[in-house]
Amino acid sequence: MEVLITGAAGFIGSTLAARLASGAGLKDSLGRSFQPSRLVLCDRARAEQAPTPLAGQPQIEWRLGSIADPAFAATLVSPRTACVFHLAGIVSGAAEADFDAGLRVNLDGTRHLLEAARRAGAARAIDGLGPVRLVHASSIAVYGVPIPGRIDDDTQPWPTLSYGVQKLASELLIGDLSRRGFIDGRSLRLSGVVVRPPNPNGALSAFNSDLIRELLAGRPVVSPVSPSATIWLQSIRQTTDNLLHAMALDAAALGSQRAILLPALACRIDEIVEAIAAIAGPDSRRLVTYRPDPRIEPMFGRWPRPFTATRARRLGFGVDGDLAELVRACSAA
Amino acid sequence: MEVLITGAAGFIGSTLAARLASGAGLKDSLGRSFQPSRLVLCDRARAEQAPTPLAGQPQIEWRLGSIADPAFAATLVSPRTACVFHLAGIVSGAAEADFDAGLRVNLDGTRHLLEAARRAGAARAIDGLGPVRLVHASSIAVYGVPIPGRIDDDTQPWPTLSYGVQKLASELLIGDLSRRGFIDGRSLRLSGVVVRPPNPNGALSAFNSDLIRELLAGRPVVSPVSPSATIWLQSIRQTTDNLLHAMALDAAALGSQRAILLPALACRIDEIVEAIAAIAGPDSRRLVTYRPDPRIEPMFGRWPRPFTATRARRLGFGVDGDLAELVRACSAA
Repeated sequence: MEVLITGAAGFIGSTLAARLASGAGLKDSLGRSFQPSRLVLCDRARAEQAPTPLAGQPQIEWRLGSIADPAFAATLVSPRTACVFHLAGIVSGAAEADFDAGLRVNLDGTRHLLEAARRAGAARAIDGLGPVRLVHASSIAVYGVPIPGRIDDDTQPWPTLSYGVQKLASELLIGDLSRRGFIDGRSLRLSGVVVRPPNPNGALSAFNSDLIRELLAGRPVVSPVSPSATIWLQSIRQTTDNLLHAMALDAAALGSQRAILLPALACRIDEIVEAIAAIAGPDSRRLVTYRPDPRIEPMFGRWPRPFTATRARRLGFGVDGDLAELVRACSAA
Repeated sequence: MEVLITGAAGFIGSTLAARLASGAGLKDSLGRSFQPSRLVLCDRARAEQAPTPLAGQPQIEWRLGSIADPAFAATLVSPRTACVFHLAGIVSGAAEADFDAGLRVNLDGTRHLLEAARRAGAARAIDGLGPVRLVHASSIAVYGVPIPGRIDDDTQPWPTLSYGVQKLASELLIGDLSRRGFIDGRSLRLSGVVVRPPNPNGALSAFNSDLIRELLAGRPVVSPVSPSATIWLQSIRQTTDNLLHAMALDAAALGSQRAILLPALACRIDEIVEAIAAIAGPDSRRLVTYRPDPRIEPMFGRWPRPFTATRARRLGFGVDGDLAELVRACSAA
């Protein structure tokens, strides 16, 4: 059985692809465990450090193109596709800078992919297979500014950036197609995943990764949020654990609410700096210059804490142990 | 200046068109009051009882077609269009029966119309005019089942029918385009509008109107919900008042939240029957046969009360005085 990853050349996608290539198992929508026989990796360009096929591991096929192209998207999902990790997207800053591109990729591209999955599901049903199971990387950007003073599973998401609007609309469509049995989808609301590589991908929250990466490397960094700003973080390892867990979860456990707010560590910037100083030495503190940006801090630096993603924890999703552990994981990466 | 009404041949659209044709004034997005010089009435077919042009009243132009057709939708809004009432849509039962048609009209059709309004707005800006002001008829269907035990302005909308998903996704897009200044939009979450004509339009909540209309006419009726079921109602007169009020509201009063839960009367079915009996005589009670439908009552008969649409009341939206008055208004219609 095949597994498709969209956005497979990205930070999360390439890490996930490597784990699947080296034997991580999955479950299909009928609850049957399987090892993928083939990994279909979709992105606009091939990853530089892509997993290479080895004996006994899944075949790897790259498919280069944009899901915004309906004809291309239609070819991505076949009746052999049991699972789709849908990670492709234009992130916050880029979707803000180019409204049409964001809409075309994040909303229309998702529509095209869902349509392909639905059509494949209809063909699968003839062979007694379940609908295509799909995990969609959504975002806490579905909550807008001012960021609610408390966020839990009942908080009304109301995005105030185009990116969040496109993600929430995609969540709604995935929920509806799942209710109708066209697909078996689930959306995960991800927090900041660290440590992203330095290549800017246009995420307005990229300072999270910049701060940790640069300080760990002993390089100076400018923080666009104040020392007391609070952000939500998760390590890339924990994130891919949670993506794999989401794919393995029985639909019955999810019920009708197919969007899941994932747990994350809620930390202050100065706590992060202290955790890094404990590893990299006290110089870390002096390497940070604070220049709070009034456009950034209200949107990305006022996440509430404490934060408990009650439903996700009950569903078995994990969270990094503590900030020291998170920073150690970043340091080792 | 022109005003466009989509869905102009429908129950709400034709009532609104008649009011605008007979001189109801509006405000454009720069806050300037005006009398429409031209009413563009869009629907798939002309209304049987359409307003006729009279001397001193706006010109009326019918445009027949579907907003799901992007080429047609593109022609509906011109730089002379100051206001759009977007009422066209496939209602709940029909969108449930035909998923693709619902998506095509309710979501894609709205997208096409928004794109046309945005393009017209760019042309208007050159002439110093404000963006196109747009009022979208959304629905309390954005709240899904189980219906929350209490609904207020902070209640998380989470639709469980395709219709509600399409309406909420449209609200989100209208909010985002308004934030960016491409349009000046507002979505109104409408409750059951009574009394609709007997022609079934596919709304699963049509029993609201059937009950009142048939009992007032002294004809027997079957209620698919129990006597203790609670529904939210508003008269067609109050609804068009609120649509006109929404169009006249300054954008500054709305802030970033462009979706507004409108007030309505929360009433039990047996109270409605009693209110009708007070007008039409005690026989009304015997004319009702209760056959609660387990598919209908949980979705359409469990609306909470008391219900206060605090924000909408503060913004000046109105509500029918009481049930007796609502029924009298229906009786007079």
